[in-house]
Amino acid sequence: MRAVERFTENPLICPEAVRPSRPDLEVTRVFNCGATLYKGRTVLLMRVAERPIPEKGYMSTAYLDPRQPGGYATLRVRLDDPDLDLADPRGVFFYKGVPYLYVVSHLRLATSDDGRRFTVEDRPAMLPEFDYEVYGVEDPRIVFLNGWYYINYSAIAPTGVTTALARTADFKTYEKLGIIFAPDNKDIGIFPEKVGGSYVCFHRPSMKQIGAPSMWLAFSDNLLDWGRHRFVIGPRPGLWDSERVGCGAHPIKTPRGWLEIYHGADANIRYCCGAVLTDLERPWIPLARGDDPILFPHASYEMEGFLPNVIFHNGLVQRPDGSVDLYYGAADTTVCGARLDVGAVLDGLRPVKA
Amino acid sequence: MRAVERFTENPLICPEAVRPSRPDLEVTRVFNCGATLYKGRTVLLMRVAERPIPEKGYMSTAYLDPRQPGGYATLRVRLDDPDLDLADPRGVFFYKGVPYLYVVSHLRLATSDDGRRFTVEDRPAMLPEFDYEVYGVEDPRIVFLNGWYYINYSAIAPTGVTTALARTADFKTYEKLGIIFAPDNKDIGIFPEKVGGSYVCFHRPSMKQIGAPSMWLAFSDNLLDWGRHRFVIGPRPGLWDSERVGCGAHPIKTPRGWLEIYHGADANIRYCCGAVLTDLERPWIPLARGDDPILFPHASYEMEGFLPNVIFHNGLVQRPDGSVDLYYGAADTTVCGARLDVGAVLDGLRPVKA
Repeated sequence: MRAVERFTENPLICPEAVRPSRPDLEVTRVFNCGATLYKGRTVLLMRVAERPIPEKGYMSTAYLDPRQPGGYATLRVRLDDPDLDLADPRGVFFYKGVPYLYVVSHLRLATSDDGRRFTVEDRPAMLPEFDYEVYGVEDPRIVFLNGWYYINYSAIAPTGVTTALARTADFKTYEKLGIIFAPDNKDIGIFPEKVGGSYVCFHRPSMKQIGAPSMWLAFSDNLLDWGRHRFVIGPRPGLWDSERVGCGAHPIKTPRGWLEIYHGADANIRYCCGAVLTDLERPWIPLARGDDPILFPHASYEMEGFLPNVIFHNGLVQRPDGSVDLYYGAADTTVCGARLDVGAVLDGLRPVKA
Repeated sequence: MRAVERFTENPLICPEAVRPSRPDLEVTRVFNCGATLYKGRTVLLMRVAERPIPEKGYMSTAYLDPRQPGGYATLRVRLDDPDLDLADPRGVFFYKGVPYLYVVSHLRLATSDDGRRFTVEDRPAMLPEFDYEVYGVEDPRIVFLNGWYYINYSAIAPTGVTTALARTADFKTYEKLGIIFAPDNKDIGIFPEKVGGSYVCFHRPSMKQIGAPSMWLAFSDNLLDWGRHRFVIGPRPGLWDSERVGCGAHPIKTPRGWLEIYHGADANIRYCCGAVLTDLERPWIPLARGDDPILFPHASYEMEGFLPNVIFHNGLVQRPDGSVDLYYGAADTTVCGARLDVGAVLDGLRPVKA
């Protein structure tokens, strides 16, 4: 029995299926989506990446102009400009030493009856609005708590990469609640219930000098302020997750512990999904972890695209029949899905020595 | 009228005045200290840096061995070992690609009747104990709240540079409360009173890719969990604080706003003190800031030492007569002090345009 079975319908959503937010922009990629069930339907909140319609010989990008609410500014540079530095492969370029993103992202809703065939809304659900979102809003995770769908997302700005929180009750109006994790922090997965009387999340700080990008855990009493940090797991030299690890969506509660489907990357920037099980009451303690990924780039839509060999999962749906579906970005270009066999995943883990 | 007047007694405390915590270690530096008044006396909680007694031709350092509580492990490497990388000037070296600190730090108490002549205790006040403190505890700040002296300090470990919290009522026993800021975060200054019903602090995340090390602000309801983050001020290209800024001790409440004596550094790693005034009710909004430092390396004890041209202030005492003293580390080597004229500092600020 395989632990993960890709949907035969993959890729579920391609950039061509997404209408740009403005006539002067084009959608280049639709990927990393949060996911949940809402009124029995599967809801995806997807990252949609846009850029100005390209001109030959030029590179251009758009970003929020906070002096002009809702308005974008544009940077347009000749490709042979010596001040243009395109060396970084992960979505950032530098012009005159200042970092810019290739694209500006917003969040867009897609809905489905069967979790496989989706209708994409014509208009953005959440756009960049504030000074901490100037370079876009990305990679949402959704969790249902106290009657609200809480959405955390990466907010990118010249001041840093933070994680912000928003909430909605109806996926029509969204209330932004501000920054919950200071830079650099991404990959926050808020648990679907309290542990020991407090809210809990996994988070993923990135460090400059000491330490590798790792999964940490924090507690909160109000979902806004997070602390009581604990290290959970880090990269493993020589394995598929040798360079960085970060949580996917929120963990799945099982009788044996909290099962987190996380992402790991190696030095070749190959992103896979793996599994770790943590203690139910002390959720920062890893109990078991898989030696191998449960899902690695193999299908053509995962091996070709903007960032080849990337599977990035941040949406998870537990259905009333007990089945679990993962949604993931493939090659940072499309939205895909897979069915997860929780029992098979648990059976594939090996105890972590204390 | 000068805004800052160095104590003629400087340096107040030198490494020779500090007894090592163990016979196999030597104290190489005593510097960055938190400060407060306790029962009318000036109390400093100082960073004491130790290393194994040197051997010719070898470089060695000590760090906590968490499997052996209270015990240190030692790394000893030939200076000509090709796996030894000493290129980083700021206290970190690499051996076989793994970062180590040159020293392991603990916190030591010194007390004084006049704030200038100190008696240093023979034994450490706070030692590294936990896995998040393996490489030492550093740079404490002290604030008095609810009958407790709260001490935040940098906790250094292979997993990253975090800020942890502790408290004491008597400067005899200390209760450690865990990590309050995930890596990389240093330079936390908790305000001496609540603002808008919540605790407030300045903090200083460091970023990997986008953004420069800047002063941010966060709120908390329990001093353990921090969120609602706001950007406050960043480095200013071309000025003395062009590379990094971070808060010193907690801010001083004035009728015009919160006056924070912060540190800034330029590309030459020259650290100075400067001043910024923020709004009383919305303390993340800078109202005024000095173009020039109020204190820059000039005295011989500031220009010579382990890290020359460094003034790093993290201790502040407001005396009953209204005078304010700054305590600072000079050249990362000694403890020094200076009298601050708050009125003169305020008069030297220039309004920040909104």
